[in-house]
Amino acid sequence: MSAIWSVMLKEEKNKMKKGAKISNAVIRRLPRYRRYLGELQKKGVDKISSNEFSKLIGYTASQIRQDLNNFGGFGQQGYGYNVKDLYSEISGILGLKNKYRLVLVGAGNLGHAIANYIGNYRTGFDIEGIFEVDPEMIGVDLNGVIVTDYDSMVGFVESRKTDIGIICTGKESAQEVADKLCFAGVKGIWNFAPVDLEVPGHVAVENVHLSDSLYSLVYHINKKESKETKETKESKESNS
Amino acid sequence: MSAIWSVMLKEEKNKMKKGAKISNAVIRRLPRYRRYLGELQKKGVDKISSNEFSKLIGYTASQIRQDLNNFGGFGQQGYGYNVKDLYSEISGILGLKNKYRLVLVGAGNLGHAIANYIGNYRTGFDIEGIFEVDPEMIGVDLNGVIVTDYDSMVGFVESRKTDIGIICTGKESAQEVADKLCFAGVKGIWNFAPVDLEVPGHVAVENVHLSDSLYSLVYHINKKESKETKETKESKESNS
Repeated sequence: MSAIWSVMLKEEKNKMKKGAKISNAVIRRLPRYRRYLGELQKKGVDKISSNEFSKLIGYTASQIRQDLNNFGGFGQQGYGYNVKDLYSEISGILGLKNKYRLVLVGAGNLGHAIANYIGNYRTGFDIEGIFEVDPEMIGVDLNGVIVTDYDSMVGFVESRKTDIGIICTGKESAQEVADKLCFAGVKGIWNFAPVDLEVPGHVAVENVHLSDSLYSLVYHINKKESKETKETKESKESNS
Repeated sequence: MSAIWSVMLKEEKNKMKKGAKISNAVIRRLPRYRRYLGELQKKGVDKISSNEFSKLIGYTASQIRQDLNNFGGFGQQGYGYNVKDLYSEISGILGLKNKYRLVLVGAGNLGHAIANYIGNYRTGFDIEGIFEVDPEMIGVDLNGVIVTDYDSMVGFVESRKTDIGIICTGKESAQEVADKLCFAGVKGIWNFAPVDLEVPGHVAVENVHLSDSLYSLVYHINKKESKETKETKESKESNS
């Protein structure tokens, strides 16, 4: 890294720390930037311009510059972005340089899928406990973790200082599980149950509402269809 | 429904049809509005003001009015929103009054979870075929659908005129599956593999990137922590 670049980066970082509030929309885009930067790194790409990045990621170049300016930019005029540094910076901003202790509640199919996914794909995230009420599931080895009786969850979370609780139960029990997780001291809840949870202000919640994503898809299918019908009609009219 | 309300609604609907392009952010919020309106209906609530709705859903009242104005408003001054009508309108806008034929590819844990979820919770969405390469899975009954050899997928999708393909395979095979689904004529792809797919312009794609959601959670955990540390420090300073 050149000296100028290094100094610039430091200044930008200071700017960032003092920085204004970042909108949720920008935060939601950061993991995507990081994902693409990770792929570029794997392919041995060192630097990328906002225009090249735009073609790859599907945001406009100006959107990219604006987003990354929120954190001080990290880019240099005429050089573009240093892939490795930007990846590292975004990882830092998101808090992905730390390690997190997790528990998972609900060892049904979804619980299995999530435990496998975290275990196989996500370094830095360690599922230490899996809890379930169904006696048939208790004792099963799930990706190296033995499924345990739900009754022992609170004690476990308290003693392990668990950071994140993942809720993979049904809709009906989700709020009760969330209450217990919060009581036991988790900092965040990753909720897969189709219900919005109420939690104390110091606990972060991320809901994965699969239906919201499915319905969004359906809207876009219908929009594309009506656009095509319109275009076909217009092309017929202009041909006649 | 009063005559005036009915006339207003009709005018608003016309406005909607002519309406400008709706932003993706608004579309993403509509399923959430619908979800809450559904809960209100179940509780027997007939109407709700934007202020009451705001407390419930966690968006500001002005955000709610602005969002729903995109579609013509549906509200009446001094009355609020008619819960049933608004639910029905949003369902219509999203295209949820139609029925959709689906296939699912990849019958691992995640595939199981998604098949159960759609089968048990989502009316209007019918998974007609489940495809898999693993010979051990072929022939298994998954929520009433027999898992079938992946080789027969294209023919099935073509003959059934399948609307949506759900990809629950690993990252490596996802693009190939998407290519085949598009070739066979699906209108949309719901993708759970952690990779951004390339598809023709007439096919809609909705990616469920679980890691994006997890990383967003981690960001908010760290933000809340640093805010608390700051507040504790400030309170100590003001006490000293």
